Amino acid sequence: MTTTALAADTPLVIDGVTLGSRLVMGTGGATSLATLEKALVASGTELTTVAMRRHSAQGADSVFAILERQGIRALPNTAGCYTARDAVLTAELAREALETHWIKLEVIADEDTLLPDPVELFTATEELVARGFVVLAYTNDDPALARRLEDAGVAAVMPAGAPIGTGLGILNPHNIELIVTRAGVPVILDAGIGTASEAALAMELGCDAVLLASAVTRARDAVGMAQAMRLAVQAGRGARLAGRIPRRTLALASSPTQGMVTGSREEESL
Amino acid sequence: MTTTALAADTPLVIDGVTLGSRLVMGTGGATSLATLEKALVASGTELTTVAMRRHSAQGADSVFAILERQGIRALPNTAGCYTARDAVLTAELAREALETHWIKLEVIADEDTLLPDPVELFTATEELVARGFVVLAYTNDDPALARRLEDAGVAAVMPAGAPIGTGLGILNPHNIELIVTRAGVPVILDAGIGTASEAALAMELGCDAVLLASAVTRARDAVGMAQAMRLAVQAGRGARLAGRIPRRTLALASSPTQGMVTGSREEESL
Amino acid sequence: MTTTALAADTPLVIDGVTLGSRLVMGTGGATSLATLEKALVASGTELTTVAMRRHSAQGADSVFAILERQGIRALPNTAGCYTARDAVLTAELAREALETHWIKLEVIADEDTLLPDPVELFTATEELVARGFVVLAYTNDDPALARRLEDAGVAAVMPAGAPIGTGLGILNPHNIELIVTRAGVPVILDAGIGTASEAALAMELGCDAVLLASAVTRARDAVGMAQAMRLAVQAGRGARLAGRIPRRTLALASSPTQGMVTGSREEESL
Amino acid sequence: MTTTALAADTPLVIDGVTLGSRLVMGTGGATSLATLEKALVASGTELTTVAMRRHSAQGADSVFAILERQGIRALPNTAGCYTARDAVLTAELAREALETHWIKLEVIADEDTLLPDPVELFTATEELVARGFVVLAYTNDDPALARRLEDAGVAAVMPAGAPIGTGLGILNPHNIELIVTRAGVPVILDAGIGTASEAALAMELGCDAVLLASAVTRARDAVGMAQAMRLAVQAGRGARLAGRIPRRTLALASSPTQGMVTGSREEESL
Repeated sequence: MTTTALAADTPLVIDGVTLGSRLVMGTGGATSLATLEKALVASGTELTTVAMRRHSAQGADSVFAILERQGIRALPNTAGCYTARDAVLTAELAREALETHWIKLEVIADEDTLLPDPVELFTATEELVARGFVVLAYTNDDPALARRLEDAGVAAVMPAGAPIGTGLGILNPHNIELIVTRAGVPVILDAGIGTASEAALAMELGCDAVLLASAVTRARDAVGMAQAMRLAVQAGRGARLAGRIPRRTLALASSPTQGMVTGSREEESL
Repeated sequence: MTTTALAADTPLVIDGVTLGSRLVMGTGGATSLATLEKALVASGTELTTVAMRRHSAQGADSVFAILERQGIRALPNTAGCYTARDAVLTAELAREALETHWIKLEVIADEDTLLPDPVELFTATEELVARGFVVLAYTNDDPALARRLEDAGVAAVMPAGAPIGTGLGILNPHNIELIVTRAGVPVILDAGIGTASEAALAMELGCDAVLLASAVTRARDAVGMAQAMRLAVQAGRGARLAGRIPRRTLALASSPTQGMVTGSREEESL
Repeated sequence: MTTTALAADTPLVIDGVTLGSRLVMGTGGATSLATLEKALVASGTELTTVAMRRHSAQGADSVFAILERQGIRALPNTAGCYTARDAVLTAELAREALETHWIKLEVIADEDTLLPDPVELFTATEELVARGFVVLAYTNDDPALARRLEDAGVAAVMPAGAPIGTGLGILNPHNIELIVTRAGVPVILDAGIGTASEAALAMELGCDAVLLASAVTRARDAVGMAQAMRLAVQAGRGARLAGRIPRRTLALASSPTQGMVTGSREEESL
Repeated sequence: MTTTALAADTPLVIDGVTLGSRLVMGTGGATSLATLEKALVASGTELTTVAMRRHSAQGADSVFAILERQGIRALPNTAGCYTARDAVLTAELAREALETHWIKLEVIADEDTLLPDPVELFTATEELVARGFVVLAYTNDDPALARRLEDAGVAAVMPAGAPIGTGLGILNPHNIELIVTRAGVPVILDAGIGTASEAALAMELGCDAVLLASAVTRARDAVGMAQAMRLAVQAGRGARLAGRIPRRTLALASSPTQGMVTGSREEESL
């Protein structure tokens, strides 16, 4: 096959680390460790979040063992934290236990929406950056907050497409596009994705990667959905790079027939 | 990789013919035959439409030569026909020239929208079926007309997502779902697709295949977009088969943290 | 109040008859005749459809009595007809019983969608026009069929926003706009409206009137919803006439503050 | 007319002040003071924002003179402020000049989006509440921030439908609904409205009022659009109170025809 833009694409780089896949996975919601492992492999992910408050770093048959076995980088998150203080403590715990200074920062406002608390999130970001963490910040889809977080030093902004686990897709593509246009760090669409087309859309809007968990782990066939998401992220990225046609109000014949005497000027009049 | 639903998927069958790809390509809009050939290969298509009024069946360096060289089945269409009578004549011409009784039936209402004329389309369908053609009918997204066409004997219904060449995607997913739910023949989303996520969406809505031309041929990088569309159709099909999560109004934690003492019941509480 | 475009608006005229309201009502779904009468009054309608197969033209306390008492023009429809033949018979019945040659033509494809059958609809239209009827044709949202119906001589095209009774609103605004742009007869958005904003949207898209029934008759407070719909149609019409601002991707300050030294050039720099 | 829910609606109350209209107007973008005055009258508003940095409180022919003449309450805003400190200073200035402790708090992140800076907004809110202001806070559409602002003591939350002046409408109705569902103070949809149907939608989603400026002042016919917006807000409020029909996937006949022998059980089978 000819070298396409997708084939020639530069990889995703976060904090100097090159990632071969633009699909970041979460582990929550899986029905079994065996299925989770197969799904992670099918997804092709090279970066996977793990909730620190849920898992210890030890244990033979844990999520961490899977990630190590499969050569997938573990990204500890602060899921379940409601205050900056709590999130900072959890991040420190993760750094010590996992020997990584990467942290996916989640500071949740309430259980109903699991949306980030913007005030606590910003406070925690400043504190964690000061402590030398590489912060990947789960945020809402607000372009203004995304920029504040970038100014505060995050390594990636991770806007929600919709509340976690809802499968509502990207509720406000306009905001995601605004975030992407103005961002100087990678943008990872995080939360809300329910199906493959939405992951592709995230990439088409210009996101650098997609993070999802429930969409795969809670699907009827988790492994099949993981594979679909892998393809979708590649498809969306490929379409972004290939440069889509502009939207038009009226039709444009793909098979023009005027003046098309057979054989004449065929190359031009295809 | 584990056998997923996508891997175990039954192929698309039209009129007893098995097709290994669910992406049907059109040839209009290509900037050169060389690029078109590369794009068709990159798309993985096994079925490609050709406008009869535009091409003769002969000629060394024609679209037909490409299709033959690449082992892609040619599907003649009646693009440019505005009446049932004209479409039937064109179909007869194609049958004689190409030795195929398959015809993609297009009867266009006007140049501005290139939407099908439902009355002429229905008349032409009845006539062509009576003459022994295998009719794949390009239609609007009307569930009632789709059923009428099926009752009249078409081998596939091909509803438009949006007017040809507009890249507006699927303007009325509700109608496409209605058509799919009630169809007894393959449904091929035809026209309107602009980018990969829309092709994936068509498959997620339950379409059996997607047909597109301009989205690839007029993209900045036609070959790259062809590859993206191939992946997108697979992704959408895979997601459909894998069974997406239901949409929810409120959040559902993918990383529940209550009662999650490390190690206990980990398999269940992932 | 200053004379606005809304105040100076020309009225809706169908077949030479001037209508003071752009809200056409249906009567189906009402819980009682008393409520129906109040709702019709609250709606301000001057034209209301009645299903001929359901009602006789006689009877003291019938829908017809209400319409006569309130000075509302009755528009018989052919609801429940599945063939052109049936619809023509019903129209003839209505003409005789009600002494009107106006008919709202409905030829339904199936009970699940209640969408019009385009083939039977077109046949019935030609027949009724030939018989001297003033045909207001309930159709799908297909711009091509709308034009065919107009060419066949309908007095108004009545595209569905969504299937009858669904309350899904206008599923394909793009098609409605295409119909309006190309129409030489009044366009009445018919079916699918669920709430006030959707009726307003129909008018903003350029429709000349809106027809609805269930949205009012099945609302919790039918009379209140009738009043809301009356206001919504006026609001949408007014906005259409007033000329909305263009959509912009980025913000435009409504309160610019640069160079705004108090008092200077205040008239211009508001 | 029968008393409907709309007629019996309780008025909007903010900080103990009863407002007879649910349409709050801004003054920016007007082409002349004369047109502005007519538009304000046509809108029926009883509360109108004025940018403090732009206008002095004195001057015979100023916006303030119009508001006083028309009996419209002036709501000073802090448009043009980029920091909490600046916004607090501007609010103090307004309190002194206008003898009102009401302030519409705007703390803008950047000129491109004019979106609020959530961090500065929250800081300013806490400070202003502490100083005894009645704060109506212009915020993004984030349900978490809306709650934080309410907890901090705002009198009303004013989420943006879209960036100021864009006319993009309500980009994320899901978030607006979440904000409304959880709010204990009035919710005023602020910014982004371009046309009447969008103002109606805001009310249907449950907002207590709508604020707009450009949609009226920059319309081709500002006075006509003001009138349309007045009707739209009433229509949307009326529809909300009347209780819309549920959305359905399939059709529901509004004109059922089975078993409809004339006269029998007519009351029930309407």
